[in-house]
Amino acid sequence: MTDFSFELLSEDSRTAARAGVMHTPHGDIPTPVFAPVGTLATVKTMTPSDLHELGVNLVLANTYHLYLRPGADLVLRMGGLHRFMGWEGPILTDSGGFQVFSLEGLRRITDEGVTFRSHLDGSTHLFTPERVVAIQQKLGADIIMAFDECADPSDHAYNAQAVARTHQWAERCLAAKTRDDQAMFGIVQGGVFHDLRAQSAEYLTSLDFPGYAIGGLSVGETKAQMHAALEWLHPLLPGDKPRYLMGVGSPEDLFECVARGVDQFDCVLPTRIARNGAVLTHLGRLNLRNAQFAEDPAPIEEGCACYTCRTFSRAYLRHLIVANEITGLRLATQHNLHFVLDIMRRIRRAILDGSFADYKASFLAQYQVVGRQ
Amino acid sequence: MTDFSFELLSEDSRTAARAGVMHTPHGDIPTPVFAPVGTLATVKTMTPSDLHELGVNLVLANTYHLYLRPGADLVLRMGGLHRFMGWEGPILTDSGGFQVFSLEGLRRITDEGVTFRSHLDGSTHLFTPERVVAIQQKLGADIIMAFDECADPSDHAYNAQAVARTHQWAERCLAAKTRDDQAMFGIVQGGVFHDLRAQSAEYLTSLDFPGYAIGGLSVGETKAQMHAALEWLHPLLPGDKPRYLMGVGSPEDLFECVARGVDQFDCVLPTRIARNGAVLTHLGRLNLRNAQFAEDPAPIEEGCACYTCRTFSRAYLRHLIVANEITGLRLATQHNLHFVLDIMRRIRRAILDGSFADYKASFLAQYQVVGRQ
Repeated sequence: MTDFSFELLSEDSRTAARAGVMHTPHGDIPTPVFAPVGTLATVKTMTPSDLHELGVNLVLANTYHLYLRPGADLVLRMGGLHRFMGWEGPILTDSGGFQVFSLEGLRRITDEGVTFRSHLDGSTHLFTPERVVAIQQKLGADIIMAFDECADPSDHAYNAQAVARTHQWAERCLAAKTRDDQAMFGIVQGGVFHDLRAQSAEYLTSLDFPGYAIGGLSVGETKAQMHAALEWLHPLLPGDKPRYLMGVGSPEDLFECVARGVDQFDCVLPTRIARNGAVLTHLGRLNLRNAQFAEDPAPIEEGCACYTCRTFSRAYLRHLIVANEITGLRLATQHNLHFVLDIMRRIRRAILDGSFADYKASFLAQYQVVGRQ
Repeated sequence: MTDFSFELLSEDSRTAARAGVMHTPHGDIPTPVFAPVGTLATVKTMTPSDLHELGVNLVLANTYHLYLRPGADLVLRMGGLHRFMGWEGPILTDSGGFQVFSLEGLRRITDEGVTFRSHLDGSTHLFTPERVVAIQQKLGADIIMAFDECADPSDHAYNAQAVARTHQWAERCLAAKTRDDQAMFGIVQGGVFHDLRAQSAEYLTSLDFPGYAIGGLSVGETKAQMHAALEWLHPLLPGDKPRYLMGVGSPEDLFECVARGVDQFDCVLPTRIARNGAVLTHLGRLNLRNAQFAEDPAPIEEGCACYTCRTFSRAYLRHLIVANEITGLRLATQHNLHFVLDIMRRIRRAILDGSFADYKASFLAQYQVVGRQ
């Protein structure tokens, strides 16, 4: 029915980790996969040529942002998102749900859809399941997402209502979809509640999506609650379909969530922190703005194969970042993407050769986590 | 005495254009040459890898800016400018003269040197000929510049005084210089005045510099006055030394000034206008912010071999630039540098095969000039 399929190649014996491959019209995606975020049809500071060199297999673009500018009709007239952005590899567009539910100010939710105001000019817009599918069909990504309602993860009553609405909207999205060269994933909601997650997984799997996203996580709940939700869902989601944990992607999260059966991630973290001067290493994050790096001749990380580490010292990168030089943001972004993509490649190889649990333990023993636990 | 030499390969029969090659410790520089400006030890938005791919043969870095941050001593401890910025090709540093004379606010000029306030933190500093040479020796560029006084080009009395001081400072710079692996160019001053330019050229050539810069132009005089100054200097400067016109580099200027005997240029124009969304074509400049490009599927210029033109439409570039995406600034910079460097390569080939005057005429017949005449 669609040009999309998922092949499960290996399941880890000591964890729920899985290795596989997604086949899409624009190429294969080895899983587990990390998708850099290209909000406005560009991964900030990078070119498609850089992404190829980094080994990117999937790029996420944001429906909400592209709908507002340059507009889905313009992208369609320019030949679709792949051609427009010069990226011939696989693309995923989100549904815009997360963005419109995150907007401050006027936002009205009914069964019909969500009325919201543009963060750019305050103009009023309506996203319905049908409109969101139409927009994503114009953009033309390989993987598109059903329109869902994102609720406060710790409010049971609101989540019960959001789950019910997400299910109705999922059916309307499926009915509205006409392109066979796009795979639409359903999104499981239910916050931190076992009963609602189970209900959502059961209902959505009955609709037989080619893949399932896990929504409403990494939005304020604890890491323990996020892990619990993944553990509940692992036996409830079909083993032969990919599972996509939306908006997650710190290095420690990648290990913990792959270990709980997740196949696919996207996250702004590596690119966003880079633009603040923070870079990833196997010992944790470094902030290059720190004066301690002013005369440090070492690369960000010894042995790192990325262009930045092969070419420049921490001293030089700090100089660029302190001076607000765009090249510094670019070089830090390139390193951070390499770091996360390289981890994912190693994770996948470890799953395939049976050493994932050991690799996870050794990585996490070294890596100093910053932020919420 | 130094590791620098200049070889004059060909002189045009119909104009004063020259083709040659400068030999430096970090490689050969075919002339005429255009040097992109890497103010803070980076050509804004670019990497050394990009510069190699673009065919850059010489990068300019600013002594004034690097002295303030990260500091010349730090650059020296990090192995010098080439190693610090990851660029193993030829580098030129200016003397800082132009910057300190351009500073607003407190600035005091005596025969000893120039006392000025940092534009970053208001701290007070003194540049003398000896200090400027010492700083440039720490930075370690292949070509360094004598410290000169830049005067209002149309004030004869001030220029007479500035020329005299520039000559004293040139002698002090030569006396202070100790590194044999750096070539120091003298700078001819004299504003728009024939007598002063002649006096300056005569005096500085008596000091036998390995190259001569023409300073104090492109700072408010007319194009006709700039051209006249070059025409006066052509017979007065030694034919076997390179001539460097500082701060000049619009496409039309390159043709007009090569035709008047200039071998070397630097200019922020192609990189600076790119960051404002303006790009160069053979018909003139385009501003990509213009709404007329919103749905234009064409590249910036048909037939252009740069990565930007091979990959992206004007519509996409406009989208990136209107959305303030760094990638847009980078792609516009890459195109503009390619445009100027490609012109210089064609100019050089045309000089060597005797067709420069025809190439100049055909280029200028098409190219619509923006700005002062």
